Amino acid sequence: MCPAKVAEGEQRGFVIPIGGAEDRTEDPVILKRFVKLCGGKDAKIVIIPTASMKAETGPNYESVFNDLGIKQSTSLPINTRDDAQSSKYIEEIEKSSGIFLTGGNQLRLSTILGGTPVAQAIRRSNAAGVHVAGTSAGAAIMPEHMIAGGPTGALPNEQGVTLAPGLGLINKLILDQHFSQRNRLGRLLSAVSYNPFATGIGICEDTAAFIGPDGVLDVVGQGNITVIDPSDLKYSSMAEAKAGDSITLIGLKLHMLSSGAKYCLKTRQASPK
Amino acid sequence: MCPAKVAEGEQRGFVIPIGGAEDRTEDPVILKRFVKLCGGKDAKIVIIPTASMKAETGPNYESVFNDLGIKQSTSLPINTRDDAQSSKYIEEIEKSSGIFLTGGNQLRLSTILGGTPVAQAIRRSNAAGVHVAGTSAGAAIMPEHMIAGGPTGALPNEQGVTLAPGLGLINKLILDQHFSQRNRLGRLLSAVSYNPFATGIGICEDTAAFIGPDGVLDVVGQGNITVIDPSDLKYSSMAEAKAGDSITLIGLKLHMLSSGAKYCLKTRQASPK
Repeated sequence: MCPAKVAEGEQRGFVIPIGGAEDRTEDPVILKRFVKLCGGKDAKIVIIPTASMKAETGPNYESVFNDLGIKQSTSLPINTRDDAQSSKYIEEIEKSSGIFLTGGNQLRLSTILGGTPVAQAIRRSNAAGVHVAGTSAGAAIMPEHMIAGGPTGALPNEQGVTLAPGLGLINKLILDQHFSQRNRLGRLLSAVSYNPFATGIGICEDTAAFIGPDGVLDVVGQGNITVIDPSDLKYSSMAEAKAGDSITLIGLKLHMLSSGAKYCLKTRQASPK
Repeated sequence: MCPAKVAEGEQRGFVIPIGGAEDRTEDPVILKRFVKLCGGKDAKIVIIPTASMKAETGPNYESVFNDLGIKQSTSLPINTRDDAQSSKYIEEIEKSSGIFLTGGNQLRLSTILGGTPVAQAIRRSNAAGVHVAGTSAGAAIMPEHMIAGGPTGALPNEQGVTLAPGLGLINKLILDQHFSQRNRLGRLLSAVSYNPFATGIGICEDTAAFIGPDGVLDVVGQGNITVIDPSDLKYSSMAEAKAGDSITLIGLKLHMLSSGAKYCLKTRQASPK
């Protein structure tokens, strides 16, 4: 699904996938920057803990945001497709300045939220300027095409990734998280090579991509973002490959980006600052 | 050290790094192709088991080559720097049509052979047309700059690789082996980013790069060769990085090559066939 349309005179909010395991206490640079974007102390943040099976996940993030000086942070315990129809929750989303999707299992997010009024409210709110951050599974769900699973390893292969439709907050990239920690280059290369229209983004833990309404991605955090740009791909053997075959991909561009570096998803240009 | 000079009218032999764990019995495509290059049944292959601490490594490869129809395969038990002065071994090397360096520890190869008459004989023989294959540590030792060690992981960093001088049979590449199996992208990226003059080549197990005298690398075997071409590198933060810092590298080219694909080390062009 394409991102919801931005109304005339308005500006889309940031989309902020985080690679999981972000610092919440010692030096929470990612969460602090998210809070600042959302209005600082006056921010109104709703937490969507749907990816998690743990009842404490939502309240824990309420405490994290309270500790960062936010008075209004509210977890919405959406655990069923029925919950995702709730007009009370939709109102909370519509009144928010920031939405935070917790980690867990991205297939819980897609199966519980997919096509519901809550999903529509998140998409509409982002198009109206509300910033949406998500960590781990909460990052995975953001693009049009979501990486739902796949084997670990550095090599692409014909069955190297499971894709599923995501929330469609952004459609110019395919992303993976816990990227170097879980050795996921192979599944990102598989996803990008299935259809090389999108840039592949592998986000390390405690690292975030702050993607602005201008399509520029800003790296924040301790780790690294691996960018695979297949726009000049000259050859791919993916279509002919049988299960287990090695894959030939010729002409990918690769950037390793650390904190402060930028990548424009429109022009596909990377820069150190 | 640069490769030994090829005399007028002669042609350099192939240099054949193998990523380790090559098939020796079921479907030994790599060893068969090496044997064919060296003259088939009339090949005279010397085995240098110096990297290995095991007394049986040399004799085991004699059996492997015998099973492939070679009558003249001889292991040279070079275990000390004194052994590496032996005129008997040098004669064997000079009479050979192929030299095979076994796996083990590449620092044994470099510390025992480095600067000795045996190392000189290998270099001279290769320049005179003798083909040199090496597996695992035996592959690592081949280039001018050898990867001696380093941490596993997908990310480059300031202390991400230990380099040492190698045999200098080839100087246009830096290579690593057991590449995807041991998750070594980070140390190859570190090595390439220290000085981006060379192409980085990551060779999977049971996979070989047959590098001809024309500088064209031909992929043979079950796995994959990852090529990192830094010739268009636009920016690197390696010089400013402190220990543990994430590194920014902008503008690398990446090719994933499987059996049959080629890469020209001179023109830096990859092709599927």
